[in-house]
Amino acid sequence: MTLPKRASLDIKALAKDLRSGHRAALARAITLVESRRGDHQAAARDLVQALLPDTGKAIRVGITGSPGVGKSTTIDALGVFLIERGHKVAVLAVDPSSARTGGSILGDKTRMARLSASDRAYIRPSPAAGTLGGVAAKTREAMLLCEAAGFDVVLVETVGIGQSETVVCDMTDFFLALMLPGAGDELQGIKKGLVELADMIAINKADGDNIKRANLAAAEYRGALHILTPRSEHWQPPVETYSALTGAGIDTLWRKILEHRTAMNASGEFAERRREQQVKWMWSMLEQRMMARLRADPAIRSKVRKIEAEVADGRIAPALAAEQIADMLA
Amino acid sequence: MTLPKRASLDIKALAKDLRSGHRAALARAITLVESRRGDHQAAARDLVQALLPDTGKAIRVGITGSPGVGKSTTIDALGVFLIERGHKVAVLAVDPSSARTGGSILGDKTRMARLSASDRAYIRPSPAAGTLGGVAAKTREAMLLCEAAGFDVVLVETVGIGQSETVVCDMTDFFLALMLPGAGDELQGIKKGLVELADMIAINKADGDNIKRANLAAAEYRGALHILTPRSEHWQPPVETYSALTGAGIDTLWRKILEHRTAMNASGEFAERRREQQVKWMWSMLEQRMMARLRADPAIRSKVRKIEAEVADGRIAPALAAEQIADMLA
Repeated sequence: MTLPKRASLDIKALAKDLRSGHRAALARAITLVESRRGDHQAAARDLVQALLPDTGKAIRVGITGSPGVGKSTTIDALGVFLIERGHKVAVLAVDPSSARTGGSILGDKTRMARLSASDRAYIRPSPAAGTLGGVAAKTREAMLLCEAAGFDVVLVETVGIGQSETVVCDMTDFFLALMLPGAGDELQGIKKGLVELADMIAINKADGDNIKRANLAAAEYRGALHILTPRSEHWQPPVETYSALTGAGIDTLWRKILEHRTAMNASGEFAERRREQQVKWMWSMLEQRMMARLRADPAIRSKVRKIEAEVADGRIAPALAAEQIADMLA
Repeated sequence: MTLPKRASLDIKALAKDLRSGHRAALARAITLVESRRGDHQAAARDLVQALLPDTGKAIRVGITGSPGVGKSTTIDALGVFLIERGHKVAVLAVDPSSARTGGSILGDKTRMARLSASDRAYIRPSPAAGTLGGVAAKTREAMLLCEAAGFDVVLVETVGIGQSETVVCDMTDFFLALMLPGAGDELQGIKKGLVELADMIAINKADGDNIKRANLAAAEYRGALHILTPRSEHWQPPVETYSALTGAGIDTLWRKILEHRTAMNASGEFAERRREQQVKWMWSMLEQRMMARLRADPAIRSKVRKIEAEVADGRIAPALAAEQIADMLA
């Protein structure tokens, strides 16, 4: 495959700088990946392809939780804990709403004050692209770039809106759901979709007067999870309590993540899951490309929108509509 | 749009016969929908489109449960109950494994002895097409045909393998999960994905010595579900016990299904869900068409397989791979 000329971008030099861990090179590379310009996208594909042998070595952890649960302070505490143990930690986010709300959940780095001050941490807000698929694709590639730059733990935060948790679960090795204490009637409901995804439930704010409530909540969640068949026969998702404020239990969270990795490696599920994720990414990116083709031409775009509305109204059968759209793609 | 000549198939006559409720016409129409021949598929699209105004009026119920739970006897009991109340009941199935196992779960109509003897019931085994998407598409169209033929309740059975439950949930208004009695340690685990989908959990075999165990199981499932946030704020999935053998509780199951419909209608979720399902079907069928294009040419097929393997092995980045496949589709 002959690559078209790509203006002034020196992909080789950028890859080299990134590999030696230059933060500015990493930031520039992620910006390139996030760009919507056609020549940038082509350059980004070459860059990621060039760096591919240097990727895949990090522990990838997805973290979700409702607003107010303390996601940022948890990531700050966990990140600092890891850095003190010699790790390099990258923090990314999938927040498809950030484009609309005008800011990212990670925009306010002051909420990760200690972590953002460390030169062994790299914190990047969510890309502000339109669709969840678009945001996810860019975050996946940013993750690969962080790995190539030497970060050996990648934490991917999500706001848990719509399908964003599934998307983050699909790009990580371990999915951690954060909850608040409370028991009985005040117990925070677990979103149903989350039960399917979580490799661990961790209850924050287990400190001071809250410890007892946190333990009660943990017991209730354990009881509920007990009835559900685990996703892997080699891993029963634990329910743990911790405090992002005092740091109590942060070590246990990390130990569980490592135990999970050991169990998944031993059963062969780790490698299998990574393989499946990569193939799934490919098909998902292909789908996005096809959708982009439908959106690129204003005439086609308006036709598709019209057909979609007629299908919703029950005036055109889905099969016939699909045929009509397929003809436009041919 | 000018329709090409379609050999000897008289779509207009077939549609007319089907609308007047001729069973032979319905059977022939479903066979047409299931055919893989290009001209048949085109004719099937025209037929479904012609009948579209006569569709959508049935109550569509998806039913899942592990082997041995008594799906067939439950459908038999529920179906007869409905027929006695003046309904016309169609029973369809989504079983993507039926092609491999050489037979359909519904092949043995003797397991629905009473229902299959009624001329107010129509039982059709799962289409034996290859992929889940293909099976689902054909079942969705068969459902529309049954509605046009005057069946006002459609029960869609699934074996619950892989994603088949999601697929059946996406084509129905109400998703019913059947379970067996048992309590404590012998309690049957709820598959995690199922919790997300089920609008009701019903515990079969609540008869004779089993009644107490069934009630205990119901209490445990209720406790577990209580902790989960329901999908709709207007519907908390109930847990009921019944016996397909004695018929006890079958009336309650149906009453709950009607209550759900009333609640969904009142909140506007019913119409919204149908609209979303139709649009989702369209995109899913478009995706299948594009995949079919990739499979049609042996040279392209083998190239795609090679790229997929290289992505799984981490030798090609997903974005670059997607680009290469997209070029083949252009």
